[in-house]
Amino acid sequence: MEGKQISAAVIKRLPRYFRYLQDLQKENVERISSEELSRRMGVTASQIRQDLNNFGGFGQQGYGYNVEYLKTEIGRILGLDKTHNMIIIGGGNLGKALAGYAKFENRGFVLKGIFDNNPALIGTKIRDVSVMSIEHLEEFLAEQPVSIATLAIPTQDAQQIANRLVACGIRAIWNFAHVDLVVPEHVYVENMNLIESLMQLSYRLNKDH
Amino acid sequence: MEGKQISAAVIKRLPRYFRYLQDLQKENVERISSEELSRRMGVTASQIRQDLNNFGGFGQQGYGYNVEYLKTEIGRILGLDKTHNMIIIGGGNLGKALAGYAKFENRGFVLKGIFDNNPALIGTKIRDVSVMSIEHLEEFLAEQPVSIATLAIPTQDAQQIANRLVACGIRAIWNFAHVDLVVPEHVYVENMNLIESLMQLSYRLNKDH
Repeated sequence: MEGKQISAAVIKRLPRYFRYLQDLQKENVERISSEELSRRMGVTASQIRQDLNNFGGFGQQGYGYNVEYLKTEIGRILGLDKTHNMIIIGGGNLGKALAGYAKFENRGFVLKGIFDNNPALIGTKIRDVSVMSIEHLEEFLAEQPVSIATLAIPTQDAQQIANRLVACGIRAIWNFAHVDLVVPEHVYVENMNLIESLMQLSYRLNKDH
Repeated sequence: MEGKQISAAVIKRLPRYFRYLQDLQKENVERISSEELSRRMGVTASQIRQDLNNFGGFGQQGYGYNVEYLKTEIGRILGLDKTHNMIIIGGGNLGKALAGYAKFENRGFVLKGIFDNNPALIGTKIRDVSVMSIEHLEEFLAEQPVSIATLAIPTQDAQQIANRLVACGIRAIWNFAHVDLVVPEHVYVENMNLIESLMQLSYRLNKDH
């Protein structure tokens, strides 16, 4: 990648390409044309060609894409060939659910710790991972290389915890709190706003009446 | 709404307007200019005016927006003045976390039932809601008006369950399974793809190296 700015929309689509290519591989498909991939994915073939051209193309005119090669390359672009250490802040229902989501580890996202401020949770284990006191956050991050922090905590605590994470050098926050975090430019926030997602469904239901 | 087609991007932004207006109301702010709202939300004032013009404007030249009125109107557009009955398919960790998320009820999303195929879960309760056998899904939906079904089940089961839900008249699916559901045009699917969201963070971390 030669420093070219890739649009957020393209980045958002990459994991979907990865998923379809993975499925094709399971079906033992070795090559696929952009037309056939387009039919499967429900997007235009021209969009696929444009998206992939951002990264140099990968296709050969008239031969289509080599499924394994393209999957590997997109995986590399997505950083899935590396391991990312992750922590979860918040050991409540949502934190527990996220900690138990084994699929993450299959993709290289390795859970290293869970933090909470509830004494009843501290010391318990979720899968093999201990819930630690949030007071030990800085200490832990000084010793463990962690790149992704998941916020599964109430809205009112999220910004303050984000500040502490950023001060510890965390560069990626997966935010389930219902708030827009203010962070320095070098820190990435990916918001998973459950209630706003539900509101979009309710908008669409409402519109029909 | 006079049948005008509102873009998905605008719809996606509406819940965020709603949230900021709600916060302003808590701060007892009665009026706000598009410039001040733009500063708070980190979008341009012209985008705010354009977005709101899709629904008739709401603002008065030189006076800005009436916070309470605008919040109420956006809430109405989002269907938040109504109650939406909801069920969750899947009583595992994620289903439990979603069932326990009380914020949904405050916004009018009322959980009516949880379904699973695991005998160990059937008959248990999550909050006040019973986990029922998935075999009774059709029966339940014939008796209870439900508009939103949440899928918190493994990928391989999702399409088949979606088919059953659609056959029962469900028009909105909140999908946490890692698959693109095929549904008729009148059914809305809102995808919450956890792993693809994480992959976007990993892309951004990867790009920095």
